[in-house]
Order: sequence, then structure tokens, then C-alpha cells
Amino acid sequence: MSHNSFGHLFRVTTFGESHGPALGCIVDGCPPNIPLTADEIQAFLDKRRPGQSRFTTQRQEPDQVKILSGVFEDDRTGGPVTTGAPIMLMIENVDQRSKDYAEIRDKFRPGHADLTYQAKYGVRDYRGGGRSSARETAARVAAGAVARKIIPGVTIRGALVQMGPHKIDRTNWDWGQVDHNPFFTPDAKAAKFFEDYLDGVRKSGSSIGAVIEVTASGVPSGWGAPLYGKLDQDLASAMMSINAVKGVEIGAGFASAELSGEDNADEIRMRRGKPEFLSNNAGGILGGISTGQDVVVRFAVKPTSSILTPKRSISAQGEDVDVMTKGRHDPCVGIRAVPVGEAMMAIVLADHFLRHRGQVG
Amino acid sequence: MSHNSFGHLFRVTTFGESHGPALGCIVDGCPPNIPLTADEIQAFLDKRRPGQSRFTTQRQEPDQVKILSGVFEDDRTGGPVTTGAPIMLMIENVDQRSKDYAEIRDKFRPGHADLTYQAKYGVRDYRGGGRSSARETAARVAAGAVARKIIPGVTIRGALVQMGPHKIDRTNWDWGQVDHNPFFTPDAKAAKFFEDYLDGVRKSGSSIGAVIEVTASGVPSGWGAPLYGKLDQDLASAMMSINAVKGVEIGAGFASAELSGEDNADEIRMRRGKPEFLSNNAGGILGGISTGQDVVVRFAVKPTSSILTPKRSISAQGEDVDVMTKGRHDPCVGIRAVPVGEAMMAIVLADHFLRHRGQVG
Amino acid sequence: MSHNSFGHLFRVTTFGESHGPALGCIVDGCPPNIPLTADEIQAFLDKRRPGQSRFTTQRQEPDQVKILSGVFEDDRTGGPVTTGAPIMLMIENVDQRSKDYAEIRDKFRPGHADLTYQAKYGVRDYRGGGRSSARETAARVAAGAVARKIIPGVTIRGALVQMGPHKIDRTNWDWGQVDHNPFFTPDAKAAKFFEDYLDGVRKSGSSIGAVIEVTASGVPSGWGAPLYGKLDQDLASAMMSINAVKGVEIGAGFASAELSGEDNADEIRMRRGKPEFLSNNAGGILGGISTGQDVVVRFAVKPTSSILTPKRSISAQGEDVDVMTKGRHDPCVGIRAVPVGEAMMAIVLADHFLRHRGQVG
Amino acid sequence: MSHNSFGHLFRVTTFGESHGPALGCIVDGCPPNIPLTADEIQAFLDKRRPGQSRFTTQRQEPDQVKILSGVFEDDRTGGPVTTGAPIMLMIENVDQRSKDYAEIRDKFRPGHADLTYQAKYGVRDYRGGGRSSARETAARVAAGAVARKIIPGVTIRGALVQMGPHKIDRTNWDWGQVDHNPFFTPDAKAAKFFEDYLDGVRKSGSSIGAVIEVTASGVPSGWGAPLYGKLDQDLASAMMSINAVKGVEIGAGFASAELSGEDNADEIRMRRGKPEFLSNNAGGILGGISTGQDVVVRFAVKPTSSILTPKRSISAQGEDVDVMTKGRHDPCVGIRAVPVGEAMMAIVLADHFLRHRGQVG
Repeated sequence: MSHNSFGHLFRVTTFGESHGPALGCIVDGCPPNIPLTADEIQAFLDKRRPGQSRFTTQRQEPDQVKILSGVFEDDRTGGPVTTGAPIMLMIENVDQRSKDYAEIRDKFRPGHADLTYQAKYGVRDYRGGGRSSARETAARVAAGAVARKIIPGVTIRGALVQMGPHKIDRTNWDWGQVDHNPFFTPDAKAAKFFEDYLDGVRKSGSSIGAVIEVTASGVPSGWGAPLYGKLDQDLASAMMSINAVKGVEIGAGFASAELSGEDNADEIRMRRGKPEFLSNNAGGILGGISTGQDVVVRFAVKPTSSILTPKRSISAQGEDVDVMTKGRHDPCVGIRAVPVGEAMMAIVLADHFLRHRGQVG
Repeated sequence: MSHNSFGHLFRVTTFGESHGPALGCIVDGCPPNIPLTADEIQAFLDKRRPGQSRFTTQRQEPDQVKILSGVFEDDRTGGPVTTGAPIMLMIENVDQRSKDYAEIRDKFRPGHADLTYQAKYGVRDYRGGGRSSARETAARVAAGAVARKIIPGVTIRGALVQMGPHKIDRTNWDWGQVDHNPFFTPDAKAAKFFEDYLDGVRKSGSSIGAVIEVTASGVPSGWGAPLYGKLDQDLASAMMSINAVKGVEIGAGFASAELSGEDNADEIRMRRGKPEFLSNNAGGILGGISTGQDVVVRFAVKPTSSILTPKRSISAQGEDVDVMTKGRHDPCVGIRAVPVGEAMMAIVLADHFLRHRGQVG
Repeated sequence: MSHNSFGHLFRVTTFGESHGPALGCIVDGCPPNIPLTADEIQAFLDKRRPGQSRFTTQRQEPDQVKILSGVFEDDRTGGPVTTGAPIMLMIENVDQRSKDYAEIRDKFRPGHADLTYQAKYGVRDYRGGGRSSARETAARVAAGAVARKIIPGVTIRGALVQMGPHKIDRTNWDWGQVDHNPFFTPDAKAAKFFEDYLDGVRKSGSSIGAVIEVTASGVPSGWGAPLYGKLDQDLASAMMSINAVKGVEIGAGFASAELSGEDNADEIRMRRGKPEFLSNNAGGILGGISTGQDVVVRFAVKPTSSILTPKRSISAQGEDVDVMTKGRHDPCVGIRAVPVGEAMMAIVLADHFLRHRGQVG
Repeated sequence: MSHNSFGHLFRVTTFGESHGPALGCIVDGCPPNIPLTADEIQAFLDKRRPGQSRFTTQRQEPDQVKILSGVFEDDRTGGPVTTGAPIMLMIENVDQRSKDYAEIRDKFRPGHADLTYQAKYGVRDYRGGGRSSARETAARVAAGAVARKIIPGVTIRGALVQMGPHKIDRTNWDWGQVDHNPFFTPDAKAAKFFEDYLDGVRKSGSSIGAVIEVTASGVPSGWGAPLYGKLDQDLASAMMSINAVKGVEIGAGFASAELSGEDNADEIRMRRGKPEFLSNNAGGILGGISTGQDVVVRFAVKPTSSILTPKRSISAQGEDVDVMTKGRHDPCVGIRAVPVGEAMMAIVLADHFLRHRGQVG
């Protein structure tokens, strides 16, 4: 069952609420003898951490990760390595200002999970969204950092490729730019534009959606499995499980619906003794199995539902009310979805690497 | 593990190759005492069955389903009901013309899974694509027919909403039209247009993509589960597991990336004692849990890679070759994806209904 | 979920009722390129097959297995090999004499699952026990035959070591004897005794229990996994899932409760550069992981509940009744449990081999 | 997959090593709105806690549990209730004295998992046995306390029924005695005897095995599932997953091998409108499904392998060595297995209650 777990051989189980004492995850199935320190994980958490620019929520969370189990000193180096036992990663919450949320205890914020959690469970931790808060994605990023170490030959990179109606110019693509602007976008020109654009959104108390693209290079041909363990299927599942994601596509994605068979086919030629594809509409996956090309996935993130404009809704008592959200929030939650998308890609690939090794050797 | 299984409490495990003696599935976890006959399942299979118009492959398969286990005569009515035991559904293959495929034994068709299956397994049943053939979707449709019976209050309907670059006019939407044209489209005008359009594609030996939309009405609020058992996540997984699907979106989907928080929020008002949403950008799902609105999913189907135009590829021996596909194929495989998408929607919902009942009662 | 499935990476899902048209299983996760023919599987089925001596049920079932998917001709040899796709194994029922069971439709046989199936599901296929019949074990034996081919270095052998109160003399143990008596017992002297003993039981319309021991030699050190994927745990689960089994033990088993730490410890010495254990109270497993010694499991099989002596019971209508079973049955169902226990050992080991390879490489 | 998880709908995932900073578990799938405090869980942990008499290890661990997620204040009572989200239970280690174990870093203690962990993973946390330590059972007991709250109508009680070769006199059975002696035995006379007996074992630096019996009363008929989700199968799996357990039996267990069909059959009569069994050889389970009688399971616990007598073994460097264990240990680890066995019974039953409700309603 997978209520709060993801993956099979590399399996992540997360816990924690936005305003509880801590959140984190158990990573089970990690191969042994992989060097692993909290610092390595921290590096990825720092990328996702809120409050790093005026474009993300001002909640101050150090997101300091602790490794509570599953690593031990290596015989030779003395440095910490994984032991094959479950790895418990814990992040304590610090800046919980619960009073901010007292008002929304009885009101269902439109676009949030307030109403559905209440409908399903008859009770909910309303503080900051409780379990449905994007804070849970910190656990994903931590687990993703472990996953990357299992597949060292694979390079995983994410980028924001669209904000609101504004798509980047892909001819400007430069991976080197991604870490030099607060939007994780590879188009320096677009970054400039987004700065003004998102300032406007932020100042008006509004929010805006985004599209994120995550690429994995160095994935060998053969990972994935027909027919319900397809690599693209698990990527779709992984990305759609991220808060606020409303669409996922692989390679040409929805655009492939408009293509003819001739235009869509990725032709192949032998180059230096190896198959080389002349295009990548498939996004690196055919029949659910990796082709050896870059694995390319894109996902759409809806605008944060937390906005200053009052919207019509209902109360827990079944009365018509107006709701506006005063808490600290992201004007474009898609930005922080970039490291989260990377983490989910890493988790899916690590899992499929182990699964492939299990069945095929 | 889920190599060839889908779902948890309602679990479908499929088997079979395109040109093997039979295909089918085991449906496990079905509640007992549900009336079930082969005829009921057959009705859905007949909708997916090939060779029903000139717009689908001319392979002649009666797709006759047999129930080999899991049903028994009801005490009172004497009619067959489910017993709670696994239901084995078998469909024998009839029209296998294996000779058609002798040529492609050693050539990897671009856009097909030939190369990746070979890379992964070192062996493949090349006849008609073997396990990767769309014939497997017959098993899904059969399982979906069982799933529907578990959630009788839910109405599931699918429709083709785009063929190539041509989107239907949604103001013409009439569910009554869907079964009266060979494209399962709800826009009678578009159906007329598609007839000529697809004839052109077919005659030129080409193929074209499509977008399918599947809707479930009558889903109560509360199905689904945070955070890795989200209803939308499982729908994304389900649809992406269908052959040739390259993108999935829920509700407003990718369009939500372009929206502001104000425009995206589905406002709520009480109507006759119940919450009523004033729009459905969420596609009936918030926080991974159903809202009570229609659940709406769309997916993109790429054009069949089997086309008459020769394309550059390589052989199993590592030589550059040209490949064209002479077998029987669908000019727009998206058409037959409509009943398959419906089936996957039914399977996901039946599973989540049982999971919800398990945890919450 | 595991209602009708067993294993993780090597996963067996069975279906079928005693008097339905067929039974069998889907074997998922099998590595590719393993030569596999129906004849190889048949050899094991023939060992379990009823009606081979007067000591097993006289039901005449050829138990002819068909492979419906998952194998294809090898490139080089042309012989059939596994493809990595699910392997569907089907056995058609032949000798169903359903009229024998008409009487017990409304009566719950003591010791059988009649009452519990009815209580759980509100309906049951009463013919020959339906899903609860020992006929299901044919599917296990078929799957076990596939499992053996995945771990060719491992030798799995089962033996009857006790019938009723009569234990064999272990100093007479000769594996060569097992296939030369109808009881699968390695003690030729005991076999002679059992012949008379069981004839007496059979002629009086009674039945008797047994203890089976299954050993696996050649299992390398390192298979299994703490803490809920222990090899002994999965063996306990596997054996207890067999019909009529009421107890399972590993190595010294229940006798170890009587031992001191000194007597129980299996000491170790280096022999020819490798660790050698001086005893095997552990049954080849420490901390859930194989030690490299023989893996030894024993399980107790209760006497068949189908006997000619009337026993007090109730009817489906809630009336006191007397029940005696007139159908064809085994006087000592433990005999045919020998090949079934071997099969389950093979399935557990194949699964753990793949799991170990997945995590550790 | 189930390396470190147990259960399906009620799913427990544990983490932690004997001498790491903490251990604990995530309990996933718990129904919402169940009152739950740390104190309730603590009561069960206190029963298992070491150092409470001279008959258990002198390690001083308060075993104080913290609930880090999954509970929130109830709307009406204000008291903490489960929310349906994962419940994280953490127990910090306090008394780790790691220096005790420096000596055994390079030596494999016979009967312990040292050798097998090293063989499997190539690395191990040797301090106090690391992951293989019985300290992990604290997490089981904590999870079991949650499980009990899901099935309030069920009473689960465990007892020590044999120590070494000494079985209790079952005619003295008095559940009231269990909590009034340090052995959890229901036979006051046996308790007296065990005191002297175990003192002798302890003083000689030896150890001894035991048999534990766990009973669940109030389980309704219908829980469990054929054929690989049998209640007895899952109980066997649960009990065999406990450290040092070498055998499991249900009801008459191994004794049923000696019985005739007549003697083994549990006859049934109607009493006050309900079926009443006249005996319980079945241990409350037929065909894998509960009958409504007491569910009865017994398991054998081997003697602790940590003893003061030197035993022959090998070093990590492959040399013959002698090993004796000087750390703090239990002379009869079976004693503390009583609350652990109860916890596993509770976890299995809670899981099957939810599974039954999921499939059958």
C-alpha cells in the first residue's frame, strides 16, 4: 500500500505536519557501503529552503536534517556509510507561528485541501495545512539526496521553463544559469523578466502558476518495466504526487498529439558503435523502458491558492463565507518545486535501477 | 511490486502477448456478491475491439472473454455473483498472422519498444510487438468492466477531444454523440471533419495523435489519500501506463500554469445544504482527495509509430537500416484509447473506494 | 496487498476453484533468458498429482500445465526461454464430479473452511471446497518449478518425517529413498511401516496428520533481510499459507526453547578458507539472513477433516446437523504437501535471491 | 516490499539501531478520530522495558515514546485524536555504553547476526547488535499499542508457557497472575519455580529458551483472507519476524500432526442462536479466516546467544577465535517477547480488520 510511501526497492515513507514538532522520512532499501553525510543531504535542502529570496515564503526554517539511523563508520575510511538498514531523516520544525492559522480553522480555503481532508477524515490539523502543506516536500528532497548517491552516473537537473503565460526562450538555455537566479530558470533573459513580473504578482497579493522541466542524463537503456511499472508511469505518479501539480508530460508530451507518425518518430543511427537517436520526442522512454537518451519530464504547478483577494467559500459549519489567506506564502510555488521535482526523479530512477538489477542482474 | 499489476485492494495483474495463445488478467480483491456475467464484460470489450471501422486496425479479433474463476451461483437468484476469490478473465487470440512480422525480427522500429525490450531483456517476442502490443489493453477493459460494478453510483465516460492539431468545439459537447461516430467524440461536427481528415491520414500510410478526456460523475467527496496515494497521482499513473500515452493532466491541467490564484480558485457556495463548486479547475481533486465534483482527466496519445514511410533505424546486429511497417495498424490509436482510459478510471476509483472504506469505514 | 499473491520480485498470483474450468497462476518478475518448457514444470506437477497410489485421493486429474505467455524462442537455440514478461500457467480441471458435493452445500464441514468463507463473503463455491481446496496447490507447484530455474545452484528437497505419532528414524535418512515410496519419506523402514499404518487409517475412513521437512542446500550466505523481510519469516509465511498447515519451525525450532545458550550456539571454524558451522540449530538462518548452511524448515499438517465418521456441526440455516464427508479424499494430506513445501521453499528463495541482487548487487 | 515494514492497510515501518540516537516507527493507515496519547503507548512500553527485574538485561532505558505526527486536537473534546496521517513514534536511546562492544567488532558471535549482516552488507553497526538488536522490538510494542485502539472489542493477552524444558501446568492458568510475576506466566506455581531456575541460569552466565502463547478474544468470524493473506499465515510471519523466534504454531499446532481426523475436528453446535465450537484445535482459524473463537498462537524463542562461556567462532579476518559475550543481556529473552508477541498479534488483527472492511464492507 502506498498512502505515505513511494517506491518499491528504494522506498520512501514520509511523516509530519507543517506545524508539528518535526517532519521527515524513512528511506528503506538503500544499498550498503554508500558514503553519506548529513551535509550532502543538507546541500539539497538548502536549495529548497524557504525564505531565501523575496519570491518565496518568509517562513524561516533552517531545515536542518539529522540522520537518526542506517549509517555507520566504514571499516577502512572511518567515514559514515550506509549499512543497508533503514535511514531515518528528521527535520525539526522551528518557525511555526500557529496563531496565523487560527482564523482558518473553521473555513475551507478554496483550492486547498481543507475541505477534502475534513470530508475524508472528519478531523484535520489545520495549522498551516497540516499534512497537506508543501513543507512535506522537504522530506522528498532529503530522500532524493540519498537516491542520487545510488545512481552516481546519472545527472539530474531541473529548471523552471514557464511562469504564468511566459515561456522561456529555449534557445537561451544554459544550465549554468539555473543556480544564479531565484527562479531556477536556465534563460538569463527570462530571469530578468520574471523578477519584475513576479514582484508585481507578489505585491498585489496574488499568485501564479509555472511549468518545471526535469532532465536525467546518463540513464542507461533498460531501466523501467512493462506494463504497470513503466518508467514514465512512475515519473507521472511521482510528479503528480507533489503538491499543486496538475499535469505531467514526457518528452514531446501533449504536443505529440498534434504530430504525425513521421514527425514523431525518433530516428536512430549507429554512431561510434552505439545507437544514437536523432531526436527525443520520446523523452528517453519507449514502452516504459529507458532508451539511453535523456529522460525528460515536465509538470505544471498551479498558482498557490493562498491569496489576499477574498474568495467565496463555506465554513465547517456549512455557512457561506469569504476567505482570504494572510499567512506567509509563495507567490509562485512552482519555483520551489524545481528541487522537489529533481528529488522525485532521483527517487524513481534509484528505485528502477535496483528493480532492474533485481530482475535482470 | 508492480511490474504487471495495478491497484492495491482492487488489484489487476495482466498477462499475454499479441501473438501468444491468449491474454487476460486476474482481478483480485473484488467484493463478494456482485452479479457478474461474461456478457457484461463483453459489452465493454466490443467497444474497444479492433476492426469495427476503417479507422482502426483490420486485425479480426472477436475478443471473446471467459470467466475462469471467482464467480458462483447466488443462493437466491441462482445467477452468477462474485465470491471474493480472484477473477480470472481470459481472451484467446485468434487472428495472429505471425508471418507479417518476420521482417521486423531483426530491425528496431522507431517509436516502438523493440529496442528497449531487447536492451533490457536480451530477448523479445517480436511478433506484433509481443507484450508491448496494444492488445494488452483488452485485459484492462475487461478488468475495468468488473471495477465499474463495484462503484455503481459512479458514471464514467470518455471522449476524444482532439485529433492531431484539431480540437473539438466544447460548446458542441453532447455525450449522446460519443457512441454514434467511430471516433468516440462528443462533437458531431468534429466527427464529420475527422472522417475526412483521418481518411487522408490513413490513405497516406501515416498516423496522427489525439487527446482523450475521461470524466467520472458521482464520486463522493473523500476518496484518495495523501501523500503518495493521491487520487490524481494514481490516475496519472494509470493513464501513463497505457501504451503511447505521453501526457496526463487533471482539471485545468497545464493551463493552470498560466492562471493567477484568483482565476484558478474554485469558489464554493452552499446549495440545498451541500457544498457546490462554482468551477472545476481542480478536476474534482484537492490535496489528492475527491471533492465531490466530476473527476476529470485528459491524456495525450502519440501517433502510432507504425507507418508506411521508411524511417532510419538500426538492426539488432548494429547496422543502419531503414524500417517501414507493413502490418495492420490504427491510423489514430487514440480512438481505441477511449474505452481503455475509461477502464483505467474505473480501476483507480474502485481501488480507492475500497481503500477509503478500509481506513475510514 | 497479498490476498492471492505471494512474493515480491518473484511474485506468484494464483486463481481457480476445485471444480471450476481451470486453475493456475501468473508468475511475474522472472528473469529473462531462462530456458523453460511445460515438460519441466510437468515433472513437478506429476509428483503432486492425485491418484498415484491408494494413499491419495482417487480424483483423476492429469494436471496438464500450459504456458500461455512469457516464453519465446531463443535467438540462438530456438528453444523456449523466459522473456521477462509475466508467465501464465494454466491447468484445466477434468474430473470435477460436482454431484458428490450437492449434500454439503448447506452444511458446514467441521475443520473445513465452509463456515468461515460463508461468514466472510456471504457466498461460497461449495463444490469440492471451491477456492479453499488443496487443488490450488497445483498452481504453487507449477510456480515453484519456475522458481527453481532461477536458482540453479540450490538443491531443494522435501521429505515426510512424521505420520501421526510415528517419527522416522533420522539415522536411516537416505534422500535416495524419497522417490521410491508413496510417502516421500527418506527412511525405507518407516515407509514399510507407514504402508500398513495408513492402510488402516484409510480403511476406517479416518485420516491422520504429518510433519514435513524441506531442506535447501547451496544457498549462499546473505539472502534474506532484516527485519520484516527475514528469510525465516517468509518461509513461515509460505508454509503456513499451505492448506492444513498448523505449525512451522526453522532448524531446531520448538526444541530450541528447551536448550541452553551453550547447547544452542552453532560454533564456527575456518575450513579450507571458508567458515564452517559445527552444527545447524539455526536452520541456516541468523538474523533473518542465510548463513550458507542448509536452510531447514519443518511444518505440521493436520489430518484431513474429510472423514467418514459423522461429526456434529451446523447448517447454513443455523440448525444442528451431523456431517460426514463422502467425497474422494486423502487419508494423509501431508503426503502431497511434500512437493508443495518444496515449491514454496523455491519461491521464497527465488524471491530473496532477486531481492538481494536488487539491493546489494 | 517489506524489508522494514509490516502490514498492508495498517502498516508499520521501523528504524533504528541499538546504539544509535533513536529508534521508532511510522504507523501508516490508522483510521482517524481515535483518541491516542503517548501515555497509552507508554504503558505497553513499560511492560517490555528492560531492567525491571534481575531476570532481564540491566541496560537502563526509559523507553520514553514521543508522538511526532499524526495526532491533533479533537474538535469537541480538545484531546488528541488520530488524523489519518502517518503517526511517527520516536524513542531516544539513552544508555548506550558503546565501549562494551568494542571487542566484538571483529568477532562474529555464534548465534548472532554478526556474520550474516557482514556477509550480506559488507558493513555492520556492531554496537549492541545494531539493527539486529532486540531493542527494535520497542518500536513493535509502540505500534501494537496503536493497533489495539483500532480493534477495541478484541482482548489480546500473552503468557510464557514454557521455560527451558519446563512447561507450565495449564490447569493452573490464571490470566490475573500474568502481571504479578517477572515472567508473564499465568501459573503462579510455575512462577515460583522459574524464579529459582532462572537465577541458576543467570548466575552461571548461561541462558535458556522459552515458549510464548498469545491469545486474542473477541475476534469476529470473517477476518483473514485466502490464500496468501491468511490470518494464520500473517501471524506466522509476524511472530517469526521477532528476534530469536524459531517456531510458530496455531491452535493444536505441531500436536495436530499426531491427531486423527476425528480427534482434530472442532465440532459445532448452535448455542443461543450462534455457532459454538466444542473445542479449538483450529486456534480460531479455518481456511485462513477467523472462526469467532479465540485466536491462539504459540512461538518458540531460542536462548540468548550472549553467554559467558567461550564458544568457537571466527573473526572478520577469517581466523579461528573464541568468543564470550560480556555485555548486559537477558538470561531468558523469551520473557520480554511476551509483550512483543502481543503487539504483533494486535498489528496483524488491526491490519486484517481494515482489509476485511475494505473488501467486504
